[in-house]
Parts: sequence; structure tokens; C-alpha cells
Amino acid sequence: MTTLSDSRMVERVLASFDRQNAMHLIRATMPVVRHGLTEIHVPHWDGIEQQHGFVHGGVVGMIADTAGGYAAMTVTPEDASVLSVEYKLNLLAPADGEKLIARGQVVRSGRTLIVTNAEVFAVRDGREIMCALMQQTIMVMHGKTEK
Amino acid sequence: MTTLSDSRMVERVLASFDRQNAMHLIRATMPVVRHGLTEIHVPHWDGIEQQHGFVHGGVVGMIADTAGGYAAMTVTPEDASVLSVEYKLNLLAPADGEKLIARGQVVRSGRTLIVTNAEVFAVRDGREIMCALMQQTIMVMHGKTEK
Amino acid sequence: MTTLSDSRMVERVLASFDRQNAMHLIRATMPVVRHGLTEIHVPHWDGIEQQHGFVHGGVVGMIADTAGGYAAMTVTPEDASVLSVEYKLNLLAPADGEKLIARGQVVRSGRTLIVTNAEVFAVRDGREIMCALMQQTIMVMHGKTEK
Amino acid sequence: MTTLSDSRMVERVLASFDRQNAMHLIRATMPVVRHGLTEIHVPHWDGIEQQHGFVHGGVVGMIADTAGGYAAMTVTPEDASVLSVEYKLNLLAPADGEKLIARGQVVRSGRTLIVTNAEVFAVRDGREIMCALMQQTIMVMHGKTEK
Repeated sequence: MTTLSDSRMVERVLASFDRQNAMHLIRATMPVVRHGLTEIHVPHWDGIEQQHGFVHGGVVGMIADTAGGYAAMTVTPEDASVLSVEYKLNLLAPADGEKLIARGQVVRSGRTLIVTNAEVFAVRDGREIMCALMQQTIMVMHGKTEK
Repeated sequence: MTTLSDSRMVERVLASFDRQNAMHLIRATMPVVRHGLTEIHVPHWDGIEQQHGFVHGGVVGMIADTAGGYAAMTVTPEDASVLSVEYKLNLLAPADGEKLIARGQVVRSGRTLIVTNAEVFAVRDGREIMCALMQQTIMVMHGKTEK
Repeated sequence: MTTLSDSRMVERVLASFDRQNAMHLIRATMPVVRHGLTEIHVPHWDGIEQQHGFVHGGVVGMIADTAGGYAAMTVTPEDASVLSVEYKLNLLAPADGEKLIARGQVVRSGRTLIVTNAEVFAVRDGREIMCALMQQTIMVMHGKTEK
Repeated sequence: MTTLSDSRMVERVLASFDRQNAMHLIRATMPVVRHGLTEIHVPHWDGIEQQHGFVHGGVVGMIADTAGGYAAMTVTPEDASVLSVEYKLNLLAPADGEKLIARGQVVRSGRTLIVTNAEVFAVRDGREIMCALMQQTIMVMHGKTEK
């Protein structure tokens, strides 16, 4: 069941995502936003490749970091903003597929710090193959609404 | 003094970097390649911004990871290639400046694993302000030359 | 169902754990060893405390690292040994309880590298409270049996 | 030149270290405490070994984490305490020597968060061999003096 407060939260998160030019640059979208969870999708296209024709590891890290950050934003008050303090990413397999999906989730939510993780999958012939795993620390800035 | 083997190494590293479409996409260049060290530069332009007009943290991570990886490549044999196994990045300050510089360095070089770090600086009015710090593990694939 | 090869694996892992003096020093035991999974338990006693009477974060990290490493060992061939390359640990809550449980699991298993994670719980009045989360990279050394 | 405020800071840090039973358990001392820097020393003795007779990686991580945390404490106000949020540790070489030295340093100091690093060295025949490298995030709790 989606509540009114949920739909305001989703709107707030999507509005922020939409202001990130860098996400547009790589053609990322965020089709899933739920309490404690987001998904960022990126189609495979030549502009984001590395030298072997796979998606660049930097792009994998970029969507993992962003999916985790927005997952954190889904659980913070309206008058707060979030800041990515640090993250650690393991690259498990080449990002080889028709598209990538980064799934960010809140693991532990405190007043000041939120810990998230993200898994990145390459979708190949309809199958999801995990290609990266991230663990991240987010800081909540209370009273600092995003404009 | 630059030796012949150095200049071949620099050529090899720059040729690989040049094949990374994702680096072109964000307008990154690699003006510094030395034994154990590389620098990636990115001008500040609107396509790589996040919602507050700073350079996106994902782009900061992308050039840190890449600078560290190529620093590792400068110390590996010609018939080897390198793979980014994992990295950990702390974001220290907003990437607010006319351009970014990621400086990657080899910390410890083993036969199979190389540990690097990278510092990312925002250049503002000619001053370098450190905005991110990375620690990274690279795997060396012997006998797997990059085409 | 436990197979013969499982019971040899469990024996091999427990024999290695038993040779780690540092695990005896903190009074750690490893009551759970299964394919891809281990558990290390430590009772709360005053010798492993920090200044506020909780278990020291360093001890939490120690059992997380070790549980992840042995989880990796459960999936490697008999003539191989494992090496902890690096790990990243988030401390989520004070380690406040009658005992600690570190649960290590294999996330991805390759020929040379294995990625694991570990969760550490404080057991308080029979409830498990997660107090730390780790992501780790393990290297497999083939042909290097532990003596 | 040591100022009065420095000597109070050193006293405060050493008093806290001295209340950590776990540091006594492994026979650690902290002979160096300066603004932004600490050193923890541990003699090699059999109680802290792993199965090959080297110092256990968990002990290496324990003193790296603690040295970084106390380095942070040297730069915080008297009425504040510090909390280790997370750290990432690369193990570079076996901890093989007569003693270990963990050197913790403040890299970036903010009001709420402090980033540190630590290097751990094995001292063998008077030479220091780097065996681990850590990057850490510390949270400052203002108005929460340690008792």
C-alpha cells in the first residue's frame, strides 16, 4: 500500500535524481523508489564503455554509489539531505550485458549515519549476473533541505 | 631521464586510456604518466554535475579508480593487463572548482596484487583542495596483453 | 546431508582455526563450519573490553575478518590456502551483550579471488543485535596447503 | 614545543587508552601521542600469532583501527569523544618481525567527521617493513566526554 507520505517521498527523491546532470549523461534512470530501496538502470551504449567493450567500472561505481545514497534519502525526514561519506566497491565480473541494474538498500539507519549496500547486475539475455557489490556510509544533514 | 622502456610504457598506457569511451564522455585526459604514478584531469562542465552544481561524486570516484588502475599498469610487464578488484573512497569535500585532478600512485607492488591510492583535488583559483581519498586493490593478469 | 568430503573440509578448517593462538587469546570458538559459511563465537569477558565496558571494536573486526576468511577456506580445494587481502568494516552499534557471533559467508567465489561478507551480532537476552558489517577480499593460493 | 594544552591532550588520550583492556590483553602500548598522530607498539609474542607463527591479521587490524581512532582524538575538543564509524584495511605482507608499529594519522578533520589513515610496520632486525594500510572514518560526539 502506498501512503500519501510515501508518494511525497518518491516525488522528492525523483526530483533530486532528475537534477543530476551526470545521471542524464550516462543515460541512467531510477524506475524503482521504495522505502529503503532504489534501483538505477543504465542501458549498455558505447559512450560508457571501457577499452574491452564492457561498461566502465567507474560507471558501475557511479550508479552503485548513487543508488545507495538515494536509498538512504528514502528513509530521512523531508527537511534533511544526505551526503555520501564513503563507500567500498568490489568489482566481481565484467559489466557485460544489455543493461545494468544497481539496487541500493538501507542496512542500518541511525539519526546521523545510514549504512547502505548496493548490488550491481548486468542483465544478459534476461538473466541478472551480479557484477559489483558495495558497502556505503551516508551522513544525514538535518535542517538542510535540498532546493 | 626518460628511458626507451619508459616511453613504450607511457605509449601503452595512453593507448589504453584512449580506448575508454567513458573517459572521453566525461572529458577526462591523462596528462601525467610516470613509473608508479598517473594524473587524470577533468574540466568542470555542466554535464558531469550533481544537483547542487558540484561535480558528481560518481565522477570523482570514476577518475580516482581509473587513475589508480593506470598507475598500477605503469609498473606491470608489457604482456600483462590489470583489473580493478576493489576500492574504497572517502569523499572529503564538495568537488567545487574549475577542474579536478585525480592523482593515482602505487603503494605496494606484488606479482599478483598491487595496492594503490589516489587523491582527488578540486582546483579553485589555482589552489588544490583535496576532495576525495581512495585506497584500491588491483590484480595483475600475466600473459593477457590488452589488444 | 553431510558428505565425506564435507567432513574432511570441516576437519581441515577446524584444525587451522585451532592453531591460531590469537583466537584462543580472545576465547573465540568456531561452532559452525559449513560449505560457504562459518560462525565464530566469543563470550563477553573483561579482557576484551574497551574503555566503556563494551567489546573492543578491534575484537569485533578480528572475528569478522577471521569468519570471512574461513568461510572462503570451506570452498577451496584441499591443496590450497587462503589469504585475507583486504576488508572493510562498518561498526553499527556498541558490541554490548553476553556474547558475540560473527557470521562469515562467501558472496562470490572465483579461482584466484573470493569475496565474502560477515555480520557480527551482539547477543543480549537471547536477541541478536547486528553491531558490524564487513566486506572482504580473499586470495586463494593454489598448491600451498597449510601444514 | 609542547604547550600546556598539548600535555593535557596527551594525558587525556593516554588515560583512555589505558582503560582499554583489549589493548593490555595483546600487550600493546602507545609510546607516541602528538597532535594528529599516534603510535601503537606490540611486541611479537606467541599469544597473538596465527597458524604460521606470524602476528594474526586481526591483531594488525585492531592496532591500526585503534591508532587511527586515537589520532582523531588528539584533534578533538576536550568535551568530545570519538567513535570509529568504519575502516578499510589492506594486508600487504605477513606481520613477521620482533614487534609491530601502527602509525595513525589524521588526514582530514571536520566538525563531525574525521578521516584518518594508519600504516602498520613489522620491525625486523631494526628495519620497518610495511605490512598493512588502513583508511578510516571517525565520528566526533560533541558534549560526550569520556568518563
